[in-house]
Amino acid sequence: MYQGPHEVAVNEVPDPRIEAPNDVIVRITTTAICGSDLHMYEGRTLAEPGIVFGHENMGVVEEVGPGVVHIRKGDRVSMPFNVACGFCRNCREGKTGFCLTVNPGFAGGAYGYVAMGPYRGGQAEYLRVPFADFNCLRLPPGTEHENDFAMLADIFPTGYHGVAMTGLRPGENITVMGGGPVGLMAAYSALLMGAAEVFLVDKVPDRLRLAESIGAIPVDFTAGDPVEQIREQTDGVGTDRGVDAVGYQASGAGGEEHPAAVLNSLVEVVRPTGSLGVVGLYLAHDPGAPDERAGRGELVFKVGKFFEKGLRMGTGQANVKSYNEYLRNMIMAGRAKPSFVVSKELPLADAPEAYQRFDKREAGYSKVVLKPAA
Amino acid sequence: MYQGPHEVAVNEVPDPRIEAPNDVIVRITTTAICGSDLHMYEGRTLAEPGIVFGHENMGVVEEVGPGVVHIRKGDRVSMPFNVACGFCRNCREGKTGFCLTVNPGFAGGAYGYVAMGPYRGGQAEYLRVPFADFNCLRLPPGTEHENDFAMLADIFPTGYHGVAMTGLRPGENITVMGGGPVGLMAAYSALLMGAAEVFLVDKVPDRLRLAESIGAIPVDFTAGDPVEQIREQTDGVGTDRGVDAVGYQASGAGGEEHPAAVLNSLVEVVRPTGSLGVVGLYLAHDPGAPDERAGRGELVFKVGKFFEKGLRMGTGQANVKSYNEYLRNMIMAGRAKPSFVVSKELPLADAPEAYQRFDKREAGYSKVVLKPAA
Amino acid sequence: MYQGPHEVAVNEVPDPRIEAPNDVIVRITTTAICGSDLHMYEGRTLAEPGIVFGHENMGVVEEVGPGVVHIRKGDRVSMPFNVACGFCRNCREGKTGFCLTVNPGFAGGAYGYVAMGPYRGGQAEYLRVPFADFNCLRLPPGTEHENDFAMLADIFPTGYHGVAMTGLRPGENITVMGGGPVGLMAAYSALLMGAAEVFLVDKVPDRLRLAESIGAIPVDFTAGDPVEQIREQTDGVGTDRGVDAVGYQASGAGGEEHPAAVLNSLVEVVRPTGSLGVVGLYLAHDPGAPDERAGRGELVFKVGKFFEKGLRMGTGQANVKSYNEYLRNMIMAGRAKPSFVVSKELPLADAPEAYQRFDKREAGYSKVVLKPAA
Amino acid sequence: MYQGPHEVAVNEVPDPRIEAPNDVIVRITTTAICGSDLHMYEGRTLAEPGIVFGHENMGVVEEVGPGVVHIRKGDRVSMPFNVACGFCRNCREGKTGFCLTVNPGFAGGAYGYVAMGPYRGGQAEYLRVPFADFNCLRLPPGTEHENDFAMLADIFPTGYHGVAMTGLRPGENITVMGGGPVGLMAAYSALLMGAAEVFLVDKVPDRLRLAESIGAIPVDFTAGDPVEQIREQTDGVGTDRGVDAVGYQASGAGGEEHPAAVLNSLVEVVRPTGSLGVVGLYLAHDPGAPDERAGRGELVFKVGKFFEKGLRMGTGQANVKSYNEYLRNMIMAGRAKPSFVVSKELPLADAPEAYQRFDKREAGYSKVVLKPAA
Repeated sequence: MYQGPHEVAVNEVPDPRIEAPNDVIVRITTTAICGSDLHMYEGRTLAEPGIVFGHENMGVVEEVGPGVVHIRKGDRVSMPFNVACGFCRNCREGKTGFCLTVNPGFAGGAYGYVAMGPYRGGQAEYLRVPFADFNCLRLPPGTEHENDFAMLADIFPTGYHGVAMTGLRPGENITVMGGGPVGLMAAYSALLMGAAEVFLVDKVPDRLRLAESIGAIPVDFTAGDPVEQIREQTDGVGTDRGVDAVGYQASGAGGEEHPAAVLNSLVEVVRPTGSLGVVGLYLAHDPGAPDERAGRGELVFKVGKFFEKGLRMGTGQANVKSYNEYLRNMIMAGRAKPSFVVSKELPLADAPEAYQRFDKREAGYSKVVLKPAA
Repeated sequence: MYQGPHEVAVNEVPDPRIEAPNDVIVRITTTAICGSDLHMYEGRTLAEPGIVFGHENMGVVEEVGPGVVHIRKGDRVSMPFNVACGFCRNCREGKTGFCLTVNPGFAGGAYGYVAMGPYRGGQAEYLRVPFADFNCLRLPPGTEHENDFAMLADIFPTGYHGVAMTGLRPGENITVMGGGPVGLMAAYSALLMGAAEVFLVDKVPDRLRLAESIGAIPVDFTAGDPVEQIREQTDGVGTDRGVDAVGYQASGAGGEEHPAAVLNSLVEVVRPTGSLGVVGLYLAHDPGAPDERAGRGELVFKVGKFFEKGLRMGTGQANVKSYNEYLRNMIMAGRAKPSFVVSKELPLADAPEAYQRFDKREAGYSKVVLKPAA
Repeated sequence: MYQGPHEVAVNEVPDPRIEAPNDVIVRITTTAICGSDLHMYEGRTLAEPGIVFGHENMGVVEEVGPGVVHIRKGDRVSMPFNVACGFCRNCREGKTGFCLTVNPGFAGGAYGYVAMGPYRGGQAEYLRVPFADFNCLRLPPGTEHENDFAMLADIFPTGYHGVAMTGLRPGENITVMGGGPVGLMAAYSALLMGAAEVFLVDKVPDRLRLAESIGAIPVDFTAGDPVEQIREQTDGVGTDRGVDAVGYQASGAGGEEHPAAVLNSLVEVVRPTGSLGVVGLYLAHDPGAPDERAGRGELVFKVGKFFEKGLRMGTGQANVKSYNEYLRNMIMAGRAKPSFVVSKELPLADAPEAYQRFDKREAGYSKVVLKPAA
Repeated sequence: MYQGPHEVAVNEVPDPRIEAPNDVIVRITTTAICGSDLHMYEGRTLAEPGIVFGHENMGVVEEVGPGVVHIRKGDRVSMPFNVACGFCRNCREGKTGFCLTVNPGFAGGAYGYVAMGPYRGGQAEYLRVPFADFNCLRLPPGTEHENDFAMLADIFPTGYHGVAMTGLRPGENITVMGGGPVGLMAAYSALLMGAAEVFLVDKVPDRLRLAESIGAIPVDFTAGDPVEQIREQTDGVGTDRGVDAVGYQASGAGGEEHPAAVLNSLVEVVRPTGSLGVVGLYLAHDPGAPDERAGRGELVFKVGKFFEKGLRMGTGQANVKSYNEYLRNMIMAGRAKPSFVVSKELPLADAPEAYQRFDKREAGYSKVVLKPAA
């Protein structure tokens, strides 16, 4: 639970209860901490103290509302970070990240996130899941693949979504900007989808090593302009596709901030007629921004070059339900093992310390999974 | 032929000749003047005197190179404004506007346009067409539908392309920004593609009337913020899709210039999960721009809002060969009559006067077709 | 209510009641009789007496279960003939006609149809709608467009689906086999979707006239082989696409039965690389079939020619929820008026007579809508 | 060169010459024998003595016609088995296997194949390639990956095409009927495309072992009904997709012929809403067929069950140019190594013996590559 800037605590709170006929209550077995939790943690949003974080949740169903027909007590389930109704126009069109029902006045809802609806997060022992038949993805019983399945709620589908939005074909190549957990999942997804080459751009040596270990080509942007480095490795052409897994907090080699730097680099490195998938976060309101325009999410973007090259771009939060079933099947078949990005397992009680160390970017705390039962 | 800023003349020049085995020579029957010709005419580009304009061409084949197998002398043909080879990667992928062969060092070539390759334009009596089997679209013999077919070279496919890039489904609605010839073609295409409602935004009364006459809903932006006007007519939702048929020369109600104004308005009026198609021109180099950044085509764009709404965007010159055959069939079947945008027919000899009046935005000169034989 | 072969009666039955939290009860304002009802009526299926027919329903919501959040009492709604849960894999993938939840042991459920689940039909005063938030399409209040909206439950989406499965592009042409209500809706949909030419094949003069009145090209197969007739009108090429809106009850010019005749004709008339959409019914079990193989739905099909031409084919019941919202919007915008196929309006009490006359193929009874309130 | 049934010989013939401006002459470095060559070899077609076989060709360009602009002398190239013009409607739409130009009266042309145009095959020292800019795929110079690249002309793209036509998504599963070279390439492609599980059905132990070695799940149909075996391994559901890599020469466990057996098995094993890709050959004319109907390619097909399950099907020869560039890139990046199906390398002079042994289905002769220079 968020207490204030740079302060979370594990408090006693009343267990969630069935509130609507389509709810279930899930006993959390694993829940992860996400980079976007950090954003609230740092006090840079309008999140109020009392909000329980946690949008990457899985566990075992404990209680089932009377309207639920498919999910049963005892089922092992994973929940997308998106809270979705399943019947509004956007949900029906597969855009469950933009549900029109669950967060009136806004398109999209999520667990434990400021302004994303009144859905308490899952960094807890229990979680209330609304529209449970729609929102619960059933997993095989037991505990096998627990940390792999834990990645199904957010980052594996989000990385996959970044690539999917580009329309990458098997045999094409792609640049992934950002080697954090989402960027690594994007690179991993691109390889699973048959990409011939995946360039991953970052500066942190551990991330570059991890990227290389999964088959990507690491590009260290402190060693030179990453666009030039990639052009050299692609006969000057650049790549067919590009993913932005960084967002507005892009920083240069020296750490300086350039909110549109990653987007603009992709415009340069992706070849004419290519496309970009943007899953790195860009805010429409950022009070902490350097100037007023950036505070409204208005950034200086290479529109002219984008148009001249006939580029295309897809953006936005992942619609996890469009992907999670397929990714689960790949895990079950032994074809994907996304838990390689998990850096540490801790008991839920250690969450405050985990947030502190993650916030300081300490090695080993890039992707922490919490185990309430531990 | 371009002589200098604000000056074109009809000069005697040597007839074009077969230069390569795959060339044909076409005797021009109709050629149109385009808004982008005006840009060169105004002296705002690097176009040198001596360049012959004209990228919207049709006529009858006069002479056929030895490598040509399908096109025959006497065939009536239409040529896309794109010069394309048909075999490079981009052409094969259907992106003939970005051919890698015909204009080395750049992706894309065109007739009679600065920096788009050494292809003399067709505002003349004859035109050399390279890779003729690929670039000539055969038309039924005779003179029927001449002005309708004249629209196949550029503006009908370009408007169509703007809509196609959005992925518009029958039954959806769409905002078209700009009621010039391309915007009108975009609105027309959207209606042919089954759009339930098409809002067309402009300020010129004649354009708004023409839009209404073809079934679009006119929105006069001098009467108020067009985004608000459209929201009011769509229960506050906005439209599913949006087309930018204006480009960087967007101007406000009072005429002032805001290069990214149209793009940013579309970001507001298109609903979450929707998409934009950008066929209005944005330049990567504009020496006449107000500031250095705009001179590099770097514009202040609402990236944050775009991402928050999960929008997608396709941009770039139309790949005419992806569409012209189908649009020709619709004309032949009586289902489309794009010549409604033709405002005037003139002999080729009157071209200089036509350019002057078009440049001054005189009524009746918005889309002039020239007839060399007249 | 079905009483036995060739016998339906309007009986008093207990009103349906809310049975599950996600149910609503709808007071039926209009319900239609479908050709597939006739099949049960004729006693050729395993339908038992007591089954209430009616899968093309619309009305006003009377009562709302506790789990329903979006649909309210007083809402005017249309229900797809498919009963669907909205959360199983097939529903999520948009294949609501193949729901895995509502009819255990089979993929797909429907109202008032043998073997399609225990869902009483809507040729009655009231209808119970399960998973109402998902299954009810809200309509504008009032009574405007009543008969147009009545077509949204089945035949308009089904005709549309036949065309959609072919991948028809604007500017292409298509053959529709069968001018019954579904065939007419397929032709109508193809025109709305921008087809350049639509050939509709049938023998009944009224149907051919109606087809022509909506812009299709009628082809009377008693005047000669329809494949030849269409080839003559397409320079020998045939059409790009084809829809089978007839099914296994295909009959030749003299009335003789050839179950695969329509499919095989489409294989001949659709050009190489084209595609077929099959919405005409083919049964996997037909006890009334002439031989044992046909009784298992195994028909002699031109596989060799199909392969040689590189054809593709999509088949199956329409997933109405993929289309109904868009078609509703087209009706509301005045761009579609499917009620042209409605041949007669009758009070519910006249249903038995309507079935008799429809069964005898009497003129004027091809598409009857029933009004319970009348 | 084909001499008569069961007889080929290596004869001296005049070298091919540039005949049209867009031709090149290629010195063959590797050419493969295909199962479809065997069909002609066995005397079961209308192939006349004198035809030179060979449609799987690669080599080095020796001579270039005057209309060729991109391909140069010395380029190492691979040619799709399809001869295509690049500019007809079908080529433009990506259906290069159905070119309307190169084999008048029929859609599609190929090297060295009866009724597929006057294009001498490449089981020789030299090959004439028409429309060379379009038909030659450039390979990196040298001899690296020679046998991998040799698979690009036909079987790797054909297997890939079978899978691509099903629309397989990463994470789905698929049944491949037939473990010959094409079936193995289909299974291999499906795995590269991210399939979670690939079931390959055959009876030959070597094929089943090879399938397992690349990651597929072998299913031996002599051990029981393959449909049942696969259902057991998929919780009774069956697979999402299915590929027919056998065709009309399907035989049962005891060797008996059932031309539609594979298709009908796929109808059973693919789950409702799934799809089939058919690259196994079906003939529209087979004089050697058991009955008249089969002789016209009219087979007893489970249409009813197909429709009941809402299945879809794509068929036909592969359009190699849609795939070969991407597959080449995967080979160059080390992500694909299709030469695992090559069973033997022989000098061109040994071709007659190779045909004999292949015809007798001798072990080791399932995929022979011939080296003219050896």
